[in-house]
Amino acid sequence: MQLLESKTSLDYIALASALAEEFATTAVERDAQGGTPKQERDRLRHTGLLKLIIPKEYGGIGENWITTFKISRELAKVDSSIAHVFSYHHLGVVIPHIFGSIAQKERYYRETVQNNWFWCNALNPLDRRTTLTLDGNNFRLNGVKSFCSGSKDSDILPITATNVETNELIVIAIPTPRQGIQIQDDWDNMGQRQTDSGSIVFDNVAVYADEILRERDRPSTPFNTIRACLTQLNLANIYLGIAQGALAAAKQYTRTNTKPWLTSGVESATVDPYILQHYGNMWVDLQAATCLTDVAGELLQAAWEQEWALSEEQRGECAIAIATAKVAATKVGLEITNRIFEVMGARATTGKYGFDRYWRNLRTFTLHDPIDYKVQDIGNWVLNEQLPKPNFYS
Amino acid sequence: MQLLESKTSLDYIALASALAEEFATTAVERDAQGGTPKQERDRLRHTGLLKLIIPKEYGGIGENWITTFKISRELAKVDSSIAHVFSYHHLGVVIPHIFGSIAQKERYYRETVQNNWFWCNALNPLDRRTTLTLDGNNFRLNGVKSFCSGSKDSDILPITATNVETNELIVIAIPTPRQGIQIQDDWDNMGQRQTDSGSIVFDNVAVYADEILRERDRPSTPFNTIRACLTQLNLANIYLGIAQGALAAAKQYTRTNTKPWLTSGVESATVDPYILQHYGNMWVDLQAATCLTDVAGELLQAAWEQEWALSEEQRGECAIAIATAKVAATKVGLEITNRIFEVMGARATTGKYGFDRYWRNLRTFTLHDPIDYKVQDIGNWVLNEQLPKPNFYS
Amino acid sequence: MQLLESKTSLDYIALASALAEEFATTAVERDAQGGTPKQERDRLRHTGLLKLIIPKEYGGIGENWITTFKISRELAKVDSSIAHVFSYHHLGVVIPHIFGSIAQKERYYRETVQNNWFWCNALNPLDRRTTLTLDGNNFRLNGVKSFCSGSKDSDILPITATNVETNELIVIAIPTPRQGIQIQDDWDNMGQRQTDSGSIVFDNVAVYADEILRERDRPSTPFNTIRACLTQLNLANIYLGIAQGALAAAKQYTRTNTKPWLTSGVESATVDPYILQHYGNMWVDLQAATCLTDVAGELLQAAWEQEWALSEEQRGECAIAIATAKVAATKVGLEITNRIFEVMGARATTGKYGFDRYWRNLRTFTLHDPIDYKVQDIGNWVLNEQLPKPNFYS
Amino acid sequence: MQLLESKTSLDYIALASALAEEFATTAVERDAQGGTPKQERDRLRHTGLLKLIIPKEYGGIGENWITTFKISRELAKVDSSIAHVFSYHHLGVVIPHIFGSIAQKERYYRETVQNNWFWCNALNPLDRRTTLTLDGNNFRLNGVKSFCSGSKDSDILPITATNVETNELIVIAIPTPRQGIQIQDDWDNMGQRQTDSGSIVFDNVAVYADEILRERDRPSTPFNTIRACLTQLNLANIYLGIAQGALAAAKQYTRTNTKPWLTSGVESATVDPYILQHYGNMWVDLQAATCLTDVAGELLQAAWEQEWALSEEQRGECAIAIATAKVAATKVGLEITNRIFEVMGARATTGKYGFDRYWRNLRTFTLHDPIDYKVQDIGNWVLNEQLPKPNFYS
Repeated sequence: MQLLESKTSLDYIALASALAEEFATTAVERDAQGGTPKQERDRLRHTGLLKLIIPKEYGGIGENWITTFKISRELAKVDSSIAHVFSYHHLGVVIPHIFGSIAQKERYYRETVQNNWFWCNALNPLDRRTTLTLDGNNFRLNGVKSFCSGSKDSDILPITATNVETNELIVIAIPTPRQGIQIQDDWDNMGQRQTDSGSIVFDNVAVYADEILRERDRPSTPFNTIRACLTQLNLANIYLGIAQGALAAAKQYTRTNTKPWLTSGVESATVDPYILQHYGNMWVDLQAATCLTDVAGELLQAAWEQEWALSEEQRGECAIAIATAKVAATKVGLEITNRIFEVMGARATTGKYGFDRYWRNLRTFTLHDPIDYKVQDIGNWVLNEQLPKPNFYS
Repeated sequence: MQLLESKTSLDYIALASALAEEFATTAVERDAQGGTPKQERDRLRHTGLLKLIIPKEYGGIGENWITTFKISRELAKVDSSIAHVFSYHHLGVVIPHIFGSIAQKERYYRETVQNNWFWCNALNPLDRRTTLTLDGNNFRLNGVKSFCSGSKDSDILPITATNVETNELIVIAIPTPRQGIQIQDDWDNMGQRQTDSGSIVFDNVAVYADEILRERDRPSTPFNTIRACLTQLNLANIYLGIAQGALAAAKQYTRTNTKPWLTSGVESATVDPYILQHYGNMWVDLQAATCLTDVAGELLQAAWEQEWALSEEQRGECAIAIATAKVAATKVGLEITNRIFEVMGARATTGKYGFDRYWRNLRTFTLHDPIDYKVQDIGNWVLNEQLPKPNFYS
Repeated sequence: MQLLESKTSLDYIALASALAEEFATTAVERDAQGGTPKQERDRLRHTGLLKLIIPKEYGGIGENWITTFKISRELAKVDSSIAHVFSYHHLGVVIPHIFGSIAQKERYYRETVQNNWFWCNALNPLDRRTTLTLDGNNFRLNGVKSFCSGSKDSDILPITATNVETNELIVIAIPTPRQGIQIQDDWDNMGQRQTDSGSIVFDNVAVYADEILRERDRPSTPFNTIRACLTQLNLANIYLGIAQGALAAAKQYTRTNTKPWLTSGVESATVDPYILQHYGNMWVDLQAATCLTDVAGELLQAAWEQEWALSEEQRGECAIAIATAKVAATKVGLEITNRIFEVMGARATTGKYGFDRYWRNLRTFTLHDPIDYKVQDIGNWVLNEQLPKPNFYS
Repeated sequence: MQLLESKTSLDYIALASALAEEFATTAVERDAQGGTPKQERDRLRHTGLLKLIIPKEYGGIGENWITTFKISRELAKVDSSIAHVFSYHHLGVVIPHIFGSIAQKERYYRETVQNNWFWCNALNPLDRRTTLTLDGNNFRLNGVKSFCSGSKDSDILPITATNVETNELIVIAIPTPRQGIQIQDDWDNMGQRQTDSGSIVFDNVAVYADEILRERDRPSTPFNTIRACLTQLNLANIYLGIAQGALAAAKQYTRTNTKPWLTSGVESATVDPYILQHYGNMWVDLQAATCLTDVAGELLQAAWEQEWALSEEQRGECAIAIATAKVAATKVGLEITNRIFEVMGARATTGKYGFDRYWRNLRTFTLHDPIDYKVQDIGNWVLNEQLPKPNFYS
């Protein structure tokens, strides 16, 4: 399947659904294997979807975040690892736009289109072991960075590094194949197993001045901090997708496999009062989280379109809407990925179904940053009317 | 305050807010008294808001349900009894439209406008003690009807009665002052204390043929069953309003009265980590229920506009969206009206604040029909793709 | 009914149950009235139960805390205000024992027996407005004290006051009728309405040196801090009693009044699957809290029997067991006092039943001190193996 | 380690703890492998613990169920697969005692001791595909039986089969190595991975008359149905052990690995208010379930000791206590095995820790029979005072 002449957002979402269907056939097997979903990554490259969020003026498709996140969600329904690396590509593509100068924004957008680059994520600002040192007119990068999702098989790496002179955290973007970069291939976790979220070692890697992203030719504004909003809402969408996928799989199973319980007095599990109740309760919470996430998506797109004119207030209110959606998606996701087993029954634990992967993926990915502090941010806004202080997670 | 030349929906909502502010000053006192909020009912009459939902062609304001429910919510923030009787007025005003002929629809709309009638609710179809008996060309109404909200001080009564010949349940609408109608004034419940939801005794009351609502000159369609949707979504909006009002009151109290706990290590209750957490959690669930309720409102308005062309599918999907909203509003409402005390502290139980009325009102009103069967309906739709069978509650 | 020759703990509990049954007949009415349950207080005086915890050597009954708390629970099932004032009597009776010298312990025990004193609670150590000033060989007490449960109609007052010279918090016990003591009769709260938990004004009240409780002739040990344990476990028992009473009332109502729902497909509410589920869930959590509370009662009695030999470790582990029970009782209590309405239905909100009083009483009384910090104490013990630092609440 | 001269229950529990410590070192690895824990099974054989519940008069250790279940719990803390097969051994050992004649009880007990038999479970009464056909004086067994935990490497199989003539379900016990028995080795599920809970094919297997368990020489009494009680309480104990093990592992991890969050304002994760709260809440519910399980253990042991004198009432009340414990253990177990990740943080998802196995094991094993119908049984007892009707699960 190729991207030919797709014109509308719905076409792209339909394309993503078709890809999801394709990926679904091997999802259980690939979850067991772990490692890199190389074939699937190449399928994504081939469809042209890597250009989704890049403005048309630079050769991109020019879609908005609403569509982009819907695609994250669509993929996450069957394979949240692929949703993860695919969406972090888009969160990477815009890094020069957000952190860099106008010239950098344009250059990286154009080169991404020309080279069909697959971005990834090596920002992890909590891991301060990577340093940047002046070396003549250029710099040298050294150290280790953990949680670098999608780094393997990527074409370009956005990285945070500490400037040893100023102790400032710097964002750079350099080609993955550059000398001295060693991707460790050391991701073997209980969930999100095909995200290659392992570590990278940088051994005296050359970094050129124009690879250091700085807003030299444009004002520094709240827009500089918008990537946390993008990341957080992407998380909410993936959590939601996992939950939706789990519920759909359970429904299919209950209707075809589940037997009524001995003492239930009903002839089919599909009319068992408690099974119906579980489905009803799961739906209410899922639909609630979906609504919140959709609303937050619209606010975020509006904020994005403000670009450098984005105000602190708009950014902050958007962040609160996103946090609200993320908390709801986290809660309902954990609830659904647990509860589905009760509406399917004991035989649904058979390995071949891989129904536990929903929980393993979600439980792993919802630890990205603590939900407790998201709730606290929201509480502080509700009670004290204070906007969350922007950082890489808020 | 009078309604003068209000033009937009926002104006009506603002008017409702102003009324709410006015009613708030006596809400605690009136809750203690119980009985009829006569003065407030007259204020509502005076503002012209009783014509809100009546189409302009019959002299009404021609507002839609979205605005009407937002007003229910606005009033419920401070006084859910008034929200109750005010909203049941609108649910009554449209009864001839829904159940009656085209001629009846027009006649009752016009007379309501001309006489500024205040409608109420005496439908309670679960109470089958009221009978209708043929008496020459007309009928006689006898028996008792319970849970007749807003009947006292009302101008017109919509009633269900069993036709003794056919055993069919009939809907009629007759003037409250008609001879033989005795409003019992026997409502003294733990919540919704000023709703006059007591019983009415009918003693050989005359009922004329054209007061029996039947779709003689129009097709019988799913639109006939839409009142359950209106009622249910109105409940959701009132529950939501109560929850929003409770949260707002708690916020005000915490900020001005609550002291930090002995071992909290913080200087102000407003930065206590657990208090912030409670506010955050309450907000997430409240915002979720609000989103669901708003979405359902749009679907319901669209269904309403279909009028007699409404399809079973559209009606059914609308009912599911409403049930979803109602379940969410019920849960968050019970949570918030309980939890607020923990963010306020022991002194907030002082009688003068009346903070317990939020819970008493919500707990009472959420028993209108069992939430468990709403959840079951939703589950049956999710799992078995069956729309809820329309009745007076679904 | 009089206490004649009761010999066993079971006899005392049976006596309490009989009293509870008696008090139940007027509980709803007295809840509405508020004020002082004078007649019921006199019944308690008359039974001899005020001597329950006083050792036999001083003329008391010599019962233990296990029995005493079971009686709190028994009374709380029908009237938690009476359980409150009755149990605070016992928490008062032992104040000289805990805080005072051996001589004071003996003197106050004997006088309580001789005069059949009804103690109360005016300690509230968070309210520091009451001061003690040296006046020759004696002292003068001035200021205000809030939350003085059971003070009206009491015979003796245990009070905390700040020594103006040392800024130390002092515990004293003086007769209620002493000149200068004005009980304000200003308790009018949403729950625990017959506890007279209002404020007292002290206007230059004489206090004699031997009314100041100090461990002059015995060692200062962890036993000095045991009253917080007694208070906290008494709270847990009363919360539990309220929950048990609410469940019992609901059961009675469901079996006799509740009708099966329209679409339930069952012939009786007593076999409705969701109603059974609610009862099942309520029971599991109630039984859990009961077990925890009983276990804590045994630990506390053992700690009490250590008297001045009580170690920090034993005191601390006992405090954790009590906190655990209290958290569980609070949660299940709030759950049950809310949920019962769903198994009874809309008509159970009728005022005459007074079913909302369970929630109002529990919600009010569970704010005594914040449950969040009890949970934190437990967490700190589980994770860091640190015992809670004794204070008036831990 | 060998069992030498252990004398007290505490010695056996200590021995189990030592074994658990030993098994812990390979638990993560063996979970990944699945298959049969042959070495560990042999260690259990070697310790003599297979004779634990067998009365001394037949050469057994003569321990009670209280100790036996504490050992299940102890093993489950680190390896719930081993706890599973070990405990089902004991549930198997007593099958002839429960279902058989006095002679059969004695014979199987003695032979188990003499041969150090390792029992297993092939009862699964819901799978009716196994049939027993008369063949001369003996019988032939044919068909398939699923969920046969511990069958591989077992020495003897208790099986249910349908008598083709009477359609009655018959319990038999035959040696595993008998001709025609093929253990399918087809268990590959998401949890309880080393329990060999796969299927067995019976191909014309000879069954002798005295291998058919029937109460020929003793009365048929409620004792015949006690195995469901044993099974259910064993489940509760294993669930509880998993939860306790998960909490202990989390505690260890938080104290040594977890870092305080960016915006927490604390210097160590061990004083983070939300982390403390999670530990506090987990503890309260865990301790509650533990209390309930211990209480149920005492009731069950008392019921067991009644043997053929056991009354329906005692059996029923015991079943309710067990159901209560099981519901509580299920809920807290699912809560803890999910929540621990939030107190450990993202890095705790690393594969080497295997922290997801607690959830996978518990989620798998808690589907043994639906918790919803346990709750219903309890509700029916609470509301309607009806004891659960004995079956293989109640």
